[in-house]
Amino acid sequence: MKIVLDAMGGDHAPGVVIDGAVQAARELGVEIVLVGPESKIQPELARHDTAGLPISLVHADQVIEMDEHVDAVKRKRDASIRVGMRLVHDGKADAFVSAGNSGAVMASAIFDLRRIRGIKRPALAVVYPGSPTPALLIDNGANTDPTPENLVQFAQMGTIYAEKLLAIKNPRVAIVSNGEEADKGNQLVRETFPLLQSSGLNFVGNAEGKDVTKGIADVIVTDGFTGNVMIKLSEGLVSFLARLLRAELTGGLLNKLALVMMIPALILALPGALLLIPTLLRLAKRFDYAEYGGAPLLGVNGVVIIAHGRSNAKAIKNAVRVARDSVTAGLVDVIKQGLSTRASS
Amino acid sequence: MKIVLDAMGGDHAPGVVIDGAVQAARELGVEIVLVGPESKIQPELARHDTAGLPISLVHADQVIEMDEHVDAVKRKRDASIRVGMRLVHDGKADAFVSAGNSGAVMASAIFDLRRIRGIKRPALAVVYPGSPTPALLIDNGANTDPTPENLVQFAQMGTIYAEKLLAIKNPRVAIVSNGEEADKGNQLVRETFPLLQSSGLNFVGNAEGKDVTKGIADVIVTDGFTGNVMIKLSEGLVSFLARLLRAELTGGLLNKLALVMMIPALILALPGALLLIPTLLRLAKRFDYAEYGGAPLLGVNGVVIIAHGRSNAKAIKNAVRVARDSVTAGLVDVIKQGLSTRASS
Repeated sequence: MKIVLDAMGGDHAPGVVIDGAVQAARELGVEIVLVGPESKIQPELARHDTAGLPISLVHADQVIEMDEHVDAVKRKRDASIRVGMRLVHDGKADAFVSAGNSGAVMASAIFDLRRIRGIKRPALAVVYPGSPTPALLIDNGANTDPTPENLVQFAQMGTIYAEKLLAIKNPRVAIVSNGEEADKGNQLVRETFPLLQSSGLNFVGNAEGKDVTKGIADVIVTDGFTGNVMIKLSEGLVSFLARLLRAELTGGLLNKLALVMMIPALILALPGALLLIPTLLRLAKRFDYAEYGGAPLLGVNGVVIIAHGRSNAKAIKNAVRVARDSVTAGLVDVIKQGLSTRASS
Repeated sequence: MKIVLDAMGGDHAPGVVIDGAVQAARELGVEIVLVGPESKIQPELARHDTAGLPISLVHADQVIEMDEHVDAVKRKRDASIRVGMRLVHDGKADAFVSAGNSGAVMASAIFDLRRIRGIKRPALAVVYPGSPTPALLIDNGANTDPTPENLVQFAQMGTIYAEKLLAIKNPRVAIVSNGEEADKGNQLVRETFPLLQSSGLNFVGNAEGKDVTKGIADVIVTDGFTGNVMIKLSEGLVSFLARLLRAELTGGLLNKLALVMMIPALILALPGALLLIPTLLRLAKRFDYAEYGGAPLLGVNGVVIIAHGRSNAKAIKNAVRVARDSVTAGLVDVIKQGLSTRASS
């Protein structure tokens, strides 16, 4: 299996992308194809011992910058994103992974791979943590102004992904709204509600913001504007809480004195604390986006995984893992079949 | 100053509302007028020693339930919400506070108090925590499908509130979007952006979800659908993190053993930990919605404060405090003047 990796994608590219590529090639049993300017990739590769590793390089002359307008996709035919996407389109690779300009990746995916027949708009799906179960939140930024029909397709694709890749039976579907009752919502949500009710999906109704983390549904549908705000607000809030805790606890003379006074206790607590380490690691993992790796773009003719712009090497590696598992599961065919089964049922 | 309190509003009404009313009457130097069915309020009042306290009662025959459709406002002319609102309208009281059905409170406010001349849609403002500064997020649920012109008015009212009630000079205004760049956003945001640029307000551009907690603006404008989802998602996420931490740390035999092993250390840490208490209390306060008390509905001819449905007595008391401060600041006149100054400048 060959996975194309956009060497120029992400805030820390190409350095960390190459680091992630090397880790992925070592650990995941896949071939990595790096795309980007050879002159920039070679020096980074030279930092690693890649002898015997299944890493190859395909030159791409141009780069679409992180903050560049999505129009660049049309203009820059030789950008790493477009060259990589064509490798997948031509059957020379099985999946494409990028931590780059997500708007450009989505536009290029639609342009170069085309949509799956019958899908009006591809959508980006991410796993949102929750208890007792997490939820697949779809869409997270591909479509800022979708129609009710688009949202129903997001629900269908999300259901298929949850069934086939997350092994959830008969996934429960909810739609983000500003109240539980069926008549709550903005116009888009109110128009989508009856369509979801008659869709044949396991639709359980509206999900308020406070319900998203409560495991009330396996697939939570929303427009890409709201989904993007939800994901980024959550990210910001978690890091705000961490900053606040650190600042409050380490600021001020009294707190510093308190911490010094607790040093003997901390030493005494060490043996017990060591036992807690697996739990703390597990907790940290749940909130480390690097563990999730990347978000699949559902609805295009190929496996496309979009990783976080701030991805480190581990996040890149795990995005490759998501790509590998999606290829193994036959993601594109599974969506095609799922759509035709649902259409004929 | 007389503040009307909806005795029947909130998940724990009338019990905690009466508790909050008694606290407010004792501590805040205002008169409290309770509205609701006398037969339900009297027994609750009888639990307290109210001798000499400035608490009076105005009977209201009907109640609009928490989950009742907003249409009930038209039908139930004698509901506590409507009776209370009319007391403000008739000049018999200075402000109205309710932890009840927020849709009904907003509808009744618009119906019985009327909008301020020139204001198309009133909006709900809440303080969202952030560092170095919090932000006034407006609208939080009054309008699920506002127009660009509505959003500009929300920004104007938010600016006036931030200047006059939060004492912020020349408040920075941002609009919630899915990207920093001026061309990002759904259709509503893209159409509002240029209007905000030419509004004369101190508009600083788009705020992504991750920026909301970063103090990049003093007033953050959004539609009521997105605002509602943001507030409730944040609430859900914080309580999810707390639940998760508790569950992970106390679940499993190994963790229980670890906690037992740490008992001596915990005892040893006590003196230092005591010094941390003020900090921890301050932290807890920042995330206790009861401290904020309530959200002002801006744009109607009267001071209306909507408290959280799950309000406890402290939250009710603090909502009365917000009402008192709004009356003292002359909120309605300040908005009227601010609008006419901005219109003529």
